Amino acid sequence: MQWYFVAALLTLLTSSQGILTTLSQSNGKYKYDYATVPFLAEIFKLLVSGFLLWKEGQTSPPPRKTTDWKSVRLFPIPSIIYLVHNNVQFATLTFVDPSTYQIMGNLKIVTTGILFRLFLRRKLSNLQWMAIILLALGTTTSQVKGCGESSCDSLFSAPIEGYMLGLLSACLSALAGVYTEYLMKKNNDSLYWQNVQLYTFGAIFNMAWLLWEDFRVGFEKGVLWQRLFNGYTIMTWLVILNLGSSGLLVSWLMKYADNIVKVYSTSMAMLLTMVLSIYLFNIKPTMQLFLGIVICIMSIHMYFVPANMLVDLPTTSKSASDSLSEVAVKRTTES
Amino acid sequence: MQWYFVAALLTLLTSSQGILTTLSQSNGKYKYDYATVPFLAEIFKLLVSGFLLWKEGQTSPPPRKTTDWKSVRLFPIPSIIYLVHNNVQFATLTFVDPSTYQIMGNLKIVTTGILFRLFLRRKLSNLQWMAIILLALGTTTSQVKGCGESSCDSLFSAPIEGYMLGLLSACLSALAGVYTEYLMKKNNDSLYWQNVQLYTFGAIFNMAWLLWEDFRVGFEKGVLWQRLFNGYTIMTWLVILNLGSSGLLVSWLMKYADNIVKVYSTSMAMLLTMVLSIYLFNIKPTMQLFLGIVICIMSIHMYFVPANMLVDLPTTSKSASDSLSEVAVKRTTES
Repeated sequence: MQWYFVAALLTLLTSSQGILTTLSQSNGKYKYDYATVPFLAEIFKLLVSGFLLWKEGQTSPPPRKTTDWKSVRLFPIPSIIYLVHNNVQFATLTFVDPSTYQIMGNLKIVTTGILFRLFLRRKLSNLQWMAIILLALGTTTSQVKGCGESSCDSLFSAPIEGYMLGLLSACLSALAGVYTEYLMKKNNDSLYWQNVQLYTFGAIFNMAWLLWEDFRVGFEKGVLWQRLFNGYTIMTWLVILNLGSSGLLVSWLMKYADNIVKVYSTSMAMLLTMVLSIYLFNIKPTMQLFLGIVICIMSIHMYFVPANMLVDLPTTSKSASDSLSEVAVKRTTES
Repeated sequence: MQWYFVAALLTLLTSSQGILTTLSQSNGKYKYDYATVPFLAEIFKLLVSGFLLWKEGQTSPPPRKTTDWKSVRLFPIPSIIYLVHNNVQFATLTFVDPSTYQIMGNLKIVTTGILFRLFLRRKLSNLQWMAIILLALGTTTSQVKGCGESSCDSLFSAPIEGYMLGLLSACLSALAGVYTEYLMKKNNDSLYWQNVQLYTFGAIFNMAWLLWEDFRVGFEKGVLWQRLFNGYTIMTWLVILNLGSSGLLVSWLMKYADNIVKVYSTSMAMLLTMVLSIYLFNIKPTMQLFLGIVICIMSIHMYFVPANMLVDLPTTSKSASDSLSEVAVKRTTES
């Protein structure tokens, strides 16, 4: 399978996620406990990966599996980072308004690039760095509050803690991604075996978190298993299926492509969601969405098109403007 | 003189133009006839160029001057194009609102690139084309109407004639620039001699236009020379001086640099004006202005930094993500 096919599929699934989630509500409210969705998505991913691992076991040669504790113990770490990240997110939102929070979210594109360089030691050209920054600028542009929008939250007025937490959140999100890529690529273990480890811990941590939340609020909504499936509709199941499938694609990309591909994929999904919302929810298209999309497409072009195709030109013209004054001086002296 | 020094100076003068013009008003109104300003600027440029040509004549070798009619007759053409352009501008504004007009103005960045390529046969790399488009996207981004702005003109609701005229206007503006560059570079004539020809026709056409306007309204404001200098303040003279000096710098750039340098220079001036307005006229800074500035700076970097500095990287990493799946496949078969 080609990485760009998987990336495109991830874009489609991620962009449907927001739309399915909206459609799963009735009158703008959840009739089910949304917190149970990520937990069931983990279970779904675990079941699929387990099944595929079992099928892979039927073939020859059998899948490569590293089972010693020194390797397995690395797999809960992404779940732990995500757990911390979730809490930092909640904390950030107590300091900043949702639109500032959304704008700051674009920082994770840049932090992913930086951690990708630092931890995975992957070199990027200047042009690729510019492309990454441009992607963040493009997604941010698309989110600029337009003229006539009802709430004009002020972007530069949050307390400093808000911005610090936003930055921390961007770093944690990037760290989780980069660390997962490291895990998936560090040996030639079967993808499904790596997934099984990842999602087992994912499911455990998710459940522990839900139970802890139940405990924290004094079980006023009942224990986790009492409200699991409660009020679920077909749409809820689609949301779970979609979230789980996206997760499996992300795993695949982490092993066979990289974090930058994933970042492009999810950024384009964000823009696609905004475009689809225009049609589905009758939202007015904005100039900034159009600009953001064009900027992001240029960024993709800059990042992925081979450099020689971008700068391929007759040797005279690139530095033409630089040397024009010299040429002109020469001309003058000639005459 | 280096072209980037001249370009930076042009940016400063162009950005002060808007501010000086605002400062030359009293209570938001002109106490003088603004239409006389471009005419006097032409006279100023003509006087300066004439003086410099005379001084150049004192030196040895004397300045090169082509004086036959076949060459001289080409110099009114830019003035004629500008005259047509001005009228198209007025016509456009009867179909579209001022902010749509402003946004469409960014098209001239792209049309200049296209005519530059077609008429002057200057090759640009893919990267430089992308940089030009990015510049237009950046300036447009900075102009997006923000949340809470008083008038929310709708951008996509003008009649088709408005957009057609806007496009024509962008083409004419680019054509005038590209044609002037052709004129200035077609031979090794003295810049000052070329300027004298350009500004003589410029002054004549400007005056003819002003007289025609007087005639058209039945001389209700009197004839041109009756209201020239009327209500002028020191600020009015600064506006004229500034406009004239900018024009001289543009001429220099057309001969010793090129239209693209000029377009960058004036685009950055537009952004600088917006930044200065924040301080001078107490205007709230916007997210879109910040984004626009960063995008334009990236565009400059892409256009002017030598290509090998942008793509200089170890041979392995550029296509890393492209070949990752193959690598992974290889790994799997190895194990």
